[in-house]
This record gives sequence, C-alpha cells and structure tokens, in this order.
Amino acid sequence: MRFYGYFRSSSAYRCRIAFNLKDVDYDFVSVHLRKDGGQQKQPDYRAKNPQALVPALEDGDLTLTQSLAIIEWLDETFPEKARLLPDDKDTRAKVRAFAQAIACDIHPLQNLRVLDYLKTAFGADQAALDRWCGRWISDGLAACEALLEKEPASAFCFGETPGLADICLIPQVFSAHRFGVDLSAMPRLVAIAETANALPAFANAHPRNQPDAE
Amino acid sequence: MRFYGYFRSSSAYRCRIAFNLKDVDYDFVSVHLRKDGGQQKQPDYRAKNPQALVPALEDGDLTLTQSLAIIEWLDETFPEKARLLPDDKDTRAKVRAFAQAIACDIHPLQNLRVLDYLKTAFGADQAALDRWCGRWISDGLAACEALLEKEPASAFCFGETPGLADICLIPQVFSAHRFGVDLSAMPRLVAIAETANALPAFANAHPRNQPDAE
Repeated sequence: MRFYGYFRSSSAYRCRIAFNLKDVDYDFVSVHLRKDGGQQKQPDYRAKNPQALVPALEDGDLTLTQSLAIIEWLDETFPEKARLLPDDKDTRAKVRAFAQAIACDIHPLQNLRVLDYLKTAFGADQAALDRWCGRWISDGLAACEALLEKEPASAFCFGETPGLADICLIPQVFSAHRFGVDLSAMPRLVAIAETANALPAFANAHPRNQPDAE
Repeated sequence: MRFYGYFRSSSAYRCRIAFNLKDVDYDFVSVHLRKDGGQQKQPDYRAKNPQALVPALEDGDLTLTQSLAIIEWLDETFPEKARLLPDDKDTRAKVRAFAQAIACDIHPLQNLRVLDYLKTAFGADQAALDRWCGRWISDGLAACEALLEKEPASAFCFGETPGLADICLIPQVFSAHRFGVDLSAMPRLVAIAETANALPAFANAHPRNQPDAE
C-alpha cells in the first residue's frame, strides 16, 4: 500500500492516525506542496488525484482520494483491527457528521490553494489570512463542542475508544494552535485532544514526527 | 421524520434527492437563510444544528446534521429501498471520495457565510464573488470529470443506477449554472446530469419545485 501525503496537511495527518490505529503498514511518498511550484500539481500526481490535493492511496490497481473515504475504506478492509466507526447506525451517523463538520466546513477554507487565492485576488496579508482561518476554525470547533455536549461524557468524542471523529478533531486542534485560536470555550475538545495525543497512534502521526517534516 | 432545509441550499437539495430515491416521507420545515437575519442562526435552530447551517434531520430523539451523514443514515435505516451506496467496498470508497470532492472541496467555499465574509472583510463585489465561486466549481468539477474518466462508461456516475455521487453532482451542476460556469470540458458530468434530471426523484427535488422557493 502506497500513501501520498505531506507532513503538515490536515487530511494526510488524519490518514496517518487511522493507519496507526488500524496497525496497517504503508509506504510513504512525500508530495511537497511548496516545492517545484507544488508537487501536487504535477501530471504524475494529478493522474492519481485529479484534485491536485493530498492525500492519495494506492493499493494494487485501486487508487483512492479524500481522507474520509480512505479512512472508511481502511476500516472496512481491515475489519478485524480496532474499529474506527461504531456499529450502531445512529451513533455512526453522528460520528460522520462530526467528522464532516471539520472536513467539509472548517478545513477546506484553510487550504493552501484558497489562501493563495485570497492573497492574489484580494491582496490579503498574513494577518488577514490568520483572521480568515481563525474565524472558521473558531466557529467550527465551537459547533463541534456543542455537538459533543449532547453526548454522555467520555474519554474520546463518541465513547471510550478513539475513532473517526477523534481522527478529524486532533489535526484540526493542531491547526487551531498554529493559527493562535483560543480554545478556552471548548474544554471538552481540549481534554479529548490531550487524551488522544498521549497515545502512540496519535503522537506518531504528528506532523513534526514525519520524514518530510521541516 | 422532520427535515429542516432551504430550497436553494445544495446540501438540502442533496437530501431531498435521497429522500425521493429512497421513497421516504418527511415533514419539511423551512429555515430561511436570508430572513430574520438568517433563521439558521436563531437559538431554536442552533440547538438542533450548532453549526447554524442547513440541513438538520429529526427522527424521534435523534437529531442529525451534515448532508452526507444524513444520506448514509437514510441508506442504512431503509436498506430494503434503492441502495445509494454500492455493496463493493472499493467502489463504495470511490463513490464517497467523489461525493466528498464536491461536499468538502467545492460547496463549502460558496457557502453564504463565506461569501458574506469576503464582502465584509475584503470588499468583494458581486463580480468578485462570481469569480471566486466559479474558480472552485470549475476546478472541482474538472477533477470530478477526471475521476469518472477512470471508470467504465455508465448512465450515472458509478453504474446504471443513481447513488450518492449523483446526489452530490446534480445540485453542484445546478449551482454551476447559477454562477455561469462553462461545463463544455465536462461532457460526462453534463450527460449524467441530463439523465438524472429526467427522473422524478431528481426533478421533484429541484429548488424551484420546493414550497419555500422564491
């Protein structure tokens, strides 16, 4: 199995946590988003992922894109390993919704191509970009905190073992720290992140621990 | 079952198609995104969906958010009706990735709250907003076309019956038309949209056919 990623990409970070939790080995291929005008835009990589985004996963003839699709595929392909989605369909829907609140409505707005557009078309400086990212992260994580307030207290987002929701949350909390977002109104998310980051599966997936880290 | 939506929301439009394909009845509650300073921001609605976005679904004590999570839940809750996701796990992952390419990387960038931010913080006028939306729709749908080029020819995105990928594609094509995006380089997507829109499940879900349409 070959995994194309970038150390700082939130989507690649999610997949690394999932690989670790599932205890599945893979060969890593670095796609540097800033080198060579963006290696993700080169024809060889675009043939794998026409969106010119990381990550991509190759397994034999199968090529997959999109982190959430890759993670559910890993969970379904290795069902004997730790499950990342719950068996109960109602809880599973809530887990997916939480993951999508991050993967659809927070993270894509901080994407490199989006920030480049804001700089070029609207003359946004770094402070404006930080405010932009901060706004979506702050609003989005506040909504995630509120989603969890409806659930019984637990060590992870939905229960006592980590799963898809935590896999999405922890990279987003990392990104929140990068952009200086105040998380004091989200005590539950902060506590979950602390618990998760103490596990090797999460710690080893951290951007600073990757071979392509700068 | 109670469904909270808005006629022009792409996410609500997706859910309507899914309800129709599954032949599942629901009570519709209109959440007008432009009235009363945005009905989605009012406390009653935020208690259901803390993201202050449509849609939301209530079924007994269960409240769900996020269109893709809702659609997979419908598919799992009514498995005896037309299946929206394929049985084969590899194809299922490709369907999810295609859906997420739209739901994560195209649609959230055109969201009302994002356009409002661009107007307020960067002074974007309507022409600038149209270019912004057009760029992400155009790039995103070109990638979707390329994803389908890897698949055998078929009436719908992945096979001869409509499913989650088509449910995401058709509202995005509707939105592409709204923003005047040129789709001539995406003949496969255009053909699929034409086939889908001829079906009652898709036609009846169209924004203009909703009780809250303007």
